[in-house]
Amino acid sequence: MAAPRGVIRAMHRGTLTQNSGMDRIFSGIQPTGKLHLGNYCGAIQNWMRLQEEYNSVLYSIVDLHALTVPREPAVLRQSILDTTATLLACGINPEKCLLFQQSQVPEHAELGWILGCLTNMPRIQSFPQWKVKNASQNYEGTVGLFTYPVLQAADILLYKSTHVPVGEDQVLHLELTRDIAQHFNKKYGNFFPVPKAILSTTKKVRSLRDPAAKMSKSDPQKLGTLNITDSPEEIVLKFRKAVTDFTSEVTYDPDSRPGVSNLVTIHAAVTGLSIKEVVHQCVGLDTAHYKGIVAEAVIQKFAPIRNEIKRLQEDKSHLEKVLQTGAEKAKELASPVYQEIRRLVGFQ
Amino acid sequence: MAAPRGVIRAMHRGTLTQNSGMDRIFSGIQPTGKLHLGNYCGAIQNWMRLQEEYNSVLYSIVDLHALTVPREPAVLRQSILDTTATLLACGINPEKCLLFQQSQVPEHAELGWILGCLTNMPRIQSFPQWKVKNASQNYEGTVGLFTYPVLQAADILLYKSTHVPVGEDQVLHLELTRDIAQHFNKKYGNFFPVPKAILSTTKKVRSLRDPAAKMSKSDPQKLGTLNITDSPEEIVLKFRKAVTDFTSEVTYDPDSRPGVSNLVTIHAAVTGLSIKEVVHQCVGLDTAHYKGIVAEAVIQKFAPIRNEIKRLQEDKSHLEKVLQTGAEKAKELASPVYQEIRRLVGFQ
Repeated sequence: MAAPRGVIRAMHRGTLTQNSGMDRIFSGIQPTGKLHLGNYCGAIQNWMRLQEEYNSVLYSIVDLHALTVPREPAVLRQSILDTTATLLACGINPEKCLLFQQSQVPEHAELGWILGCLTNMPRIQSFPQWKVKNASQNYEGTVGLFTYPVLQAADILLYKSTHVPVGEDQVLHLELTRDIAQHFNKKYGNFFPVPKAILSTTKKVRSLRDPAAKMSKSDPQKLGTLNITDSPEEIVLKFRKAVTDFTSEVTYDPDSRPGVSNLVTIHAAVTGLSIKEVVHQCVGLDTAHYKGIVAEAVIQKFAPIRNEIKRLQEDKSHLEKVLQTGAEKAKELASPVYQEIRRLVGFQ
Repeated sequence: MAAPRGVIRAMHRGTLTQNSGMDRIFSGIQPTGKLHLGNYCGAIQNWMRLQEEYNSVLYSIVDLHALTVPREPAVLRQSILDTTATLLACGINPEKCLLFQQSQVPEHAELGWILGCLTNMPRIQSFPQWKVKNASQNYEGTVGLFTYPVLQAADILLYKSTHVPVGEDQVLHLELTRDIAQHFNKKYGNFFPVPKAILSTTKKVRSLRDPAAKMSKSDPQKLGTLNITDSPEEIVLKFRKAVTDFTSEVTYDPDSRPGVSNLVTIHAAVTGLSIKEVVHQCVGLDTAHYKGIVAEAVIQKFAPIRNEIKRLQEDKSHLEKVLQTGAEKAKELASPVYQEIRRLVGFQ
């Protein structure tokens, strides 16, 4: 399939040819607190690669977006800190990237308003995600839920970002950001780079209980989702209960054998081996035995991360300091950009 | 007619019985630049009364709202300064109230986002003003135009305002603000006062060319609208061309004689006399002669204001200083309120 307009397909463990010193990456993560294996193999591993490859990388814990679904304040507060701890423990390095909490930089909401005044209603009414989420809320979704793609555009453009790592389901949203950037540039003069998507080619991790679905924290089957902080016992149990099929051989064929292929994907992701290498290593193993091997590899991978998360969670003031420093650096970048936007639109 | 829920009918030139030391007034004005006689007799005279009657009064030039319709940046910039000059020249006194530019206080947009996450879409989809304005833009109104009542709620609640002067056409919007305040209080604990409307009883000034319509800056008949900065010659001309009827007597009967009654309304507003006193003074005059008298009264009233506007317009740095000082004071009020809101919703 050809990549959609403005989309670069990232090379797995490769370097982007487009990377230049002027590039800037922006990406956001919702403060859900507990991250799972799908987040790790998708977003976080990707983020770690990007912080090595690019000079200017911003990662934001997007708490403003978190309000688009009802959240208990105490849970949200804790989730922000837990997400910070998890990212740091996984290897997101504030020396190599700028990690910050969105709501600590007022310019996100301010630019969100301005960009909303450049976005026609029909443009966002048609988003499939809005339609699905609104329907699931008896057509009483909030203004925040409806307009969040506009705030997302502000998140990205506020830093004049040039590249945004996205999953397939976010390509439409990045298209909106690109359109808004172009609309702004046409109206007020060339100002924003039109950001490109870096489409992750990482294999999606699927539910251990239903390989037809993505691994998700809202999976009704609790055994389907493996959290980074799960204990070794939980990990062993969840892999033991993982749905595979009636063939005992270990092969990689996501279409006809999604269950065992998902195990291979996970195995490759946590060991850093390629799919081919993993399959080659496992010739002759049956899936029951193989589940134990994958479980062990996951335990090995996550044990130090889990310990580090625990250590960091006990040091709340350190986490707050990391976010504080990140916000200060983010403001340093956002402030002159937003001041120029204020001038361009006629506020001053 | 009984006043709607939460609405106080202001006494003309009277003191509100509800006024206590704890009350806070918030009102906003769009930076349209040129203000007309309708604005003067409606909003501005009302504002001047309120700044005398209340201890804490905030008036905001709402430039974020100005973006909900397309604006040329240079025109918007000038309009903000011109509106400031006009308000000051009319007697809005920064010693007695807090006059500031909305976009200089980031918390407006920030709180706007949070309140949008508490507002169901159907609640604002039904607003008649949105429907009319959206239809007039071929159903391509912007997200900003659609969501502006939510930002308006943020404008008011950010200062924990207790009272808001409104025209009849804004009563529905204040109802939204009240509902959002109550929703927030229910979810996060009692925090916002539920603001009350102060419904102006000032007589509406009508178009000089079409007394069926309100005086408006967008009146296609240029002679229908009298600007505060019109020259004496323009004022005389506009009153001479004012539509009245075939009865020469001066009476006050807005239903059967809207044209001449509008002149009486204007005459009363600019002289400070009551309608009754004006009509009594004019016994025996014919309308042609009366138009000259009203024109003269308007010229007398506006001549010093017009001179002062001109003087202030030439002192841009003074105007900017006034806005700067106003924004600093507004931030002093907004910042602790918003910090507390951040804590309540779980951002920190």
